[in-house]
Amino acid sequence: MSSLLPPSLSDTIVALSTPPGSGAIALVRLSGPQAIALTESIFAGKSLQEQATHTLHFGTLRDGERILDEVVVSLFRAPRSYTREDVVEISCHGSDYIVQQVLSLLVHRGARLAEAGEFTKRAFLHGAFDLAQAEAVADLIASDSALSHQVAMQQMRGGFSRELKELRARLVQFASLLELELDFGEEDVEFADRSGLTNLLQELEGIIRQLLRSFELGNVIKNGVTTVIAGKPNAGKSTLLNALLNEERAIVSAIPGTTRDFIEDEVSLEGIRFRFVDTAGLRDTTDVVESMGVERTRQRVRQAALLLYLFDLTTASPAQVAAELAELNPGNLIPALAVGNKLDQISSDEAAAYADDALLLSAATGQGMDELKQALLQKVRGTGLDRTGSATIVTNVRHARSLEAALAALLAVQAGLQSNAGTELLAADLRRALAYLGEITGEISTDDLLTSIFTQFCIGK
Amino acid sequence: MSSLLPPSLSDTIVALSTPPGSGAIALVRLSGPQAIALTESIFAGKSLQEQATHTLHFGTLRDGERILDEVVVSLFRAPRSYTREDVVEISCHGSDYIVQQVLSLLVHRGARLAEAGEFTKRAFLHGAFDLAQAEAVADLIASDSALSHQVAMQQMRGGFSRELKELRARLVQFASLLELELDFGEEDVEFADRSGLTNLLQELEGIIRQLLRSFELGNVIKNGVTTVIAGKPNAGKSTLLNALLNEERAIVSAIPGTTRDFIEDEVSLEGIRFRFVDTAGLRDTTDVVESMGVERTRQRVRQAALLLYLFDLTTASPAQVAAELAELNPGNLIPALAVGNKLDQISSDEAAAYADDALLLSAATGQGMDELKQALLQKVRGTGLDRTGSATIVTNVRHARSLEAALAALLAVQAGLQSNAGTELLAADLRRALAYLGEITGEISTDDLLTSIFTQFCIGK
Repeated sequence: MSSLLPPSLSDTIVALSTPPGSGAIALVRLSGPQAIALTESIFAGKSLQEQATHTLHFGTLRDGERILDEVVVSLFRAPRSYTREDVVEISCHGSDYIVQQVLSLLVHRGARLAEAGEFTKRAFLHGAFDLAQAEAVADLIASDSALSHQVAMQQMRGGFSRELKELRARLVQFASLLELELDFGEEDVEFADRSGLTNLLQELEGIIRQLLRSFELGNVIKNGVTTVIAGKPNAGKSTLLNALLNEERAIVSAIPGTTRDFIEDEVSLEGIRFRFVDTAGLRDTTDVVESMGVERTRQRVRQAALLLYLFDLTTASPAQVAAELAELNPGNLIPALAVGNKLDQISSDEAAAYADDALLLSAATGQGMDELKQALLQKVRGTGLDRTGSATIVTNVRHARSLEAALAALLAVQAGLQSNAGTELLAADLRRALAYLGEITGEISTDDLLTSIFTQFCIGK
Repeated sequence: MSSLLPPSLSDTIVALSTPPGSGAIALVRLSGPQAIALTESIFAGKSLQEQATHTLHFGTLRDGERILDEVVVSLFRAPRSYTREDVVEISCHGSDYIVQQVLSLLVHRGARLAEAGEFTKRAFLHGAFDLAQAEAVADLIASDSALSHQVAMQQMRGGFSRELKELRARLVQFASLLELELDFGEEDVEFADRSGLTNLLQELEGIIRQLLRSFELGNVIKNGVTTVIAGKPNAGKSTLLNALLNEERAIVSAIPGTTRDFIEDEVSLEGIRFRFVDTAGLRDTTDVVESMGVERTRQRVRQAALLLYLFDLTTASPAQVAAELAELNPGNLIPALAVGNKLDQISSDEAAAYADDALLLSAATGQGMDELKQALLQKVRGTGLDRTGSATIVTNVRHARSLEAALAALLAVQAGLQSNAGTELLAADLRRALAYLGEITGEISTDDLLTSIFTQFCIGK
């Protein structure tokens, strides 16, 4: 892999690795051949150069005579570090001013400000992990539910990569036999067993199709289920959302400093995140059918994965609900759920009138809430998302595209075999399939590909 | 100091110590007798209990079989840690989800979520530093200019505390002699030399007054100089601010992730921060004198430390400027600076008409900008803020209040000496003075005082 190393790896890079803003601690990270020497040049304390790897050292950072901060320095010597280079982490007080000063000072001494994802890119270039694993690092940081975390963690630890490499290794064997045939040119020998190849291709096709199917679920896990929640202002939407959020909120509010702005309308059920999209147009009117907002709401419904139509049992009727739902979701194109609220305020006869047409509950008392959660999950599962059968779930669009391209190439090989195409054609298609599969883990990569991947990272990672 | 230790110190506390939000790295910090054991209970890797202090250990965090994250654990064994207790820092991926999970897990195992400032409070209770130093930690984190950083750093490293302790030590000697006199009761002896005490009291009075004077500058350093900038919309306010911000912005934008929202209207000159307050009322009208906004602007001017009246040299006249300034700042109560912009667009004769009544410049060409900076600094210095003569600068309101109270008590002792008051009265006033001085460094402290100080800290510090 050393031929891939750009000259920039001789640099020592530096960045703030913790989120910006005031806090108890900020971490400034350096990586590269001069990481320890550069830190030492502004550090008063022990001689860092003489210290062992994986040790911590208290001291002061100085700009000449001026004391900048009291810090703790972590030493990681190559190759026992995240990047496999010498890495130093400076733990200073979490002030933007101090961080700026430390960064400026290190840059003046010769460090370079790291680009987004550059630490992880270096780890990849030094072979610490492959591309799919590197991408999982970014997914892990962005993960915000049990499932998205689990999938990213599995990918980061190499689960997906192993599966892909196995797939690829089996193809490589046939490919090399085909290449051998080509070497023998006009002699018309067949080293590669065509029927064995056909069987392998069919098996691989099945596996890749399964991985591609898993992407639909992977996308839901990573990005959540966009659920349009429609209903009149008094239907009790916020009570319902609060009831759904209840448990999660309790966790969030018990841990200071971790609340997020957008949680208001997100609910995570059994690790699957439902993003509730507001339908303001509908909420501002009292008559759904005649309101100006219906077209806007319909538009939102068309873009959604799920429609939750919430109505007030004390004022609605079954016929009315059916009409409104048909109006909102013509042709029933989007999976929809009619939910009647305020069950505690109507008689059981009135409730019975809805039969199976709606799920009835009381957001205020909690009655029926569990059924709603199950119904929401059922809707997701009902679309087949949850039945991939594969332990590996593809969550990355880039991976899905590469898998699709590899599949197309494999299908071309299959077609070639059936039509007794020449070895040269088969070998070319097989090479393409191998290249696409190799792109996922980075066995085959280009500068452009790496740039487009790592610039999506945050600075300092 | 051990009598002060509340039973809560037997707890192990935990908190996120880096700012919340997505980032490369998040640090979860534990402190207390169980810090290492608790971490070990969820850590798969080496046995942490057997590792030396100041070492780093890679491993995974596990919730049962489930891998939560790959982390690096920092070990600091008591007393070689920030709090003087066993401290563990877990460096995990900077995802809110992961941080929540790690905190929940540790809390389930028996850790307690730390209150704001509780790590620093523990450091204080264990004698790692005194109260004034602990407060300087918060100031250091909040520092956002060279001067505020320097003052906080000096205070954190004990400069201010040393000065106070010296002061107090000299008083204690006299106080104990007075107490001795009281012990001898009716025998009417005088151990304490009254004239020596008078001299000492006068000297201390001078030092404390100097410290109190320094608080005015300290306040400016810590909170900035509130400068109302008034002027018509076309006077060139934003060009002027941009010109002032120019150098600073270049630094800020070169270091990603550290830009701040409020910087738009703040300029730091020679380490002193000028906060420019907008006067929207004035900006929305074209005629200052007759506008409805004048009263609102006047009100803002009254609350400011400085008024910068910016006008357009191509449209204004000296008489007009004088009238507008008088209208805005009746009685010239607030230090004010009249600044004429667009000097490059008028003749030198026109410029001469302003004589010394206004500072003329061109924000666009930069002409006169240095003079403006000097004039702004001169205004601050002109109020006597910069001539404290003391190397120590008081920045903390609490300290200033304690110094004022100590001064009042010392003046009472002086008055008592002059009126030949009894030893008992003198001793009581001296005790009060000692108590107030002792409050600053925490030699004398109450639970309420500690609570009110440390709850102003951020969580995790």
